Amino acid sequence: MRFATLDDVRAFCGDLAEGNDQAAAAATARQGQLTKPPGSLGRLEELAAWLATWQGRERPRLDKIKIAVFAGNHGIAARGVSAFPSEVTVQMVANFAAGGAAINQLAALNGAGLQVEPIELERPTADFTLAPAMRPDEFLVALDIGYRAVTPDCDLLLVGEMGIANTTVAAALCAALFGGGAVRWTGRGTGVDDAGLARKWATIEAGLDRHRAHLADPLAVAAALGGRELAAIAGAVLAARAQRVPVLLDGFVTTAAILPFARLNPALLAHCRAGHVSAEAAHRLLLDELGLDPLLDLGMRLGEASGAAVAIGLLKAALACHNGMATFAEAGVADGGA
Amino acid sequence: MRFATLDDVRAFCGDLAEGNDQAAAAATARQGQLTKPPGSLGRLEELAAWLATWQGRERPRLDKIKIAVFAGNHGIAARGVSAFPSEVTVQMVANFAAGGAAINQLAALNGAGLQVEPIELERPTADFTLAPAMRPDEFLVALDIGYRAVTPDCDLLLVGEMGIANTTVAAALCAALFGGGAVRWTGRGTGVDDAGLARKWATIEAGLDRHRAHLADPLAVAAALGGRELAAIAGAVLAARAQRVPVLLDGFVTTAAILPFARLNPALLAHCRAGHVSAEAAHRLLLDELGLDPLLDLGMRLGEASGAAVAIGLLKAALACHNGMATFAEAGVADGGA
Repeated sequence: MRFATLDDVRAFCGDLAEGNDQAAAAATARQGQLTKPPGSLGRLEELAAWLATWQGRERPRLDKIKIAVFAGNHGIAARGVSAFPSEVTVQMVANFAAGGAAINQLAALNGAGLQVEPIELERPTADFTLAPAMRPDEFLVALDIGYRAVTPDCDLLLVGEMGIANTTVAAALCAALFGGGAVRWTGRGTGVDDAGLARKWATIEAGLDRHRAHLADPLAVAAALGGRELAAIAGAVLAARAQRVPVLLDGFVTTAAILPFARLNPALLAHCRAGHVSAEAAHRLLLDELGLDPLLDLGMRLGEASGAAVAIGLLKAALACHNGMATFAEAGVADGGA
Repeated sequence: MRFATLDDVRAFCGDLAEGNDQAAAAATARQGQLTKPPGSLGRLEELAAWLATWQGRERPRLDKIKIAVFAGNHGIAARGVSAFPSEVTVQMVANFAAGGAAINQLAALNGAGLQVEPIELERPTADFTLAPAMRPDEFLVALDIGYRAVTPDCDLLLVGEMGIANTTVAAALCAALFGGGAVRWTGRGTGVDDAGLARKWATIEAGLDRHRAHLADPLAVAAALGGRELAAIAGAVLAARAQRVPVLLDGFVTTAAILPFARLNPALLAHCRAGHVSAEAAHRLLLDELGLDPLLDLGMRLGEASGAAVAIGLLKAALACHNGMATFAEAGVADGGA
């Protein structure tokens, strides 16, 4: 196991790998020479420099893209917090294996490799209104599954999830670490009705009450109110940082999954970009709190890394321009004296 | 020529081709059966139905994408309204031909065909502060060049432009047709300084004064204050409508190019989507006035159809999911009783 104890995780987060500023500076200098008004490619220019920073090359590439989707089940699902029954988690994992889900189509479209890791679906986490969702050892095992899913030959990592009831888990993590109460952080997820929404609020408030003594410790929160798939997502993001692989986050659940770790060290977010902002309203709040500016805003709320996968196209566009365009000198175009 | 007189254009705009509602309904019904919570792909679902409407098929395709970029020069460029000299228009056309511009890279990335049509670059339009930019016959010739650029075998059309000084032209069209004065509609374009911005304002106000008697007639405005590349863009959008080819608009200039025609009949916008909203602030105002919700907001302001070309990726993602996903019945997934 990469992390034998929670203190190992804390130590890791206190000493994060840094990006390559020289490659970033070279990429930015190149952008200034391309045949376009300075800055006119907007966010695409920033994305090229960001990829350069973490890949450590002036001209980054996206030849090997990995999409890691982690699945887990949740004790609180029995409280009626989702429009779908828990069985759907394993059914959707089968759908991923058969190639029928949205993320299968988006991975194929982008030439990305898709790895789906169901984590003990037959053994849901504990109901967090009654006990910690995971013991520390269970939490570390899930974190390790994510950590081991990342290899340094990746040019880009996307993280995603599948887990019935996990928007309630994500809202609980946000409410625990930011405050503001359950209502602020809770939306309709896959589409609960008003009664289901009220059950989400009550479940989260009960969880906060149960674990009130530990809310100041982000890792204790991640174990007590989180889920296995969320821990694995965080593990993958930590591994990507160690290996300097840039990461696209997906929606509310993946962003909430790294929140406890970003609380330990906000610099963790430097190798991450938010692929999109979800229709789940709390995602916008969470991104704002973390200072993440999402690439897309398409009203998506599916999970599975689907929003991040759509954003791959923006990164490819950024690099197509960055790597392929002529410079003013090459093209014989007047540069406006800039 | 498709249009011999301005009245022919008015008649065309009064009797626009309609989309295929049956194909749209079939596409929407299919979305409801795919293995995802209803509506959870957000805008991607709407885009699939929109493509179905205009392609007239339940499962649309993007096998043949055409990008048409029109270039023109402007008499008002001599008034110092751009950060770049007029010579850059022809230099950039050469850069397109050599494959060095942003749009070349984005077309290749998306497997799209790129057609660049320089229109009488050696003969700029008249300075609109002194005379109409184009006589009606000149305007109709440019419109026809655009109309002829579109063939019915296209699955999707993108329109774009290159023309030093044409954000001033676009702002003049908006100010003429919406009012609010030059300042409301004028930004820094490719990057003019404060003095250049003041020259843009003064040029537009002088143009409005010169042509005040004709501002109630949208086609007269398009000829008097417009440009050849803008007229060609409008011609291409009209041809696409006749042939039921869906269109992605690019930035401020392409949107302003169709504004006079949308004034004749707002239903013209039904086969169009805004690929992005530009960093040129007036573009957001114009999209809001037209009720167009842009797909991307990346701070781009390059033109050349570049923003629309980045948005192709979203359409491909929409169709990958729409055409490739399994239904609940096919996958054996519980549909939540929806």
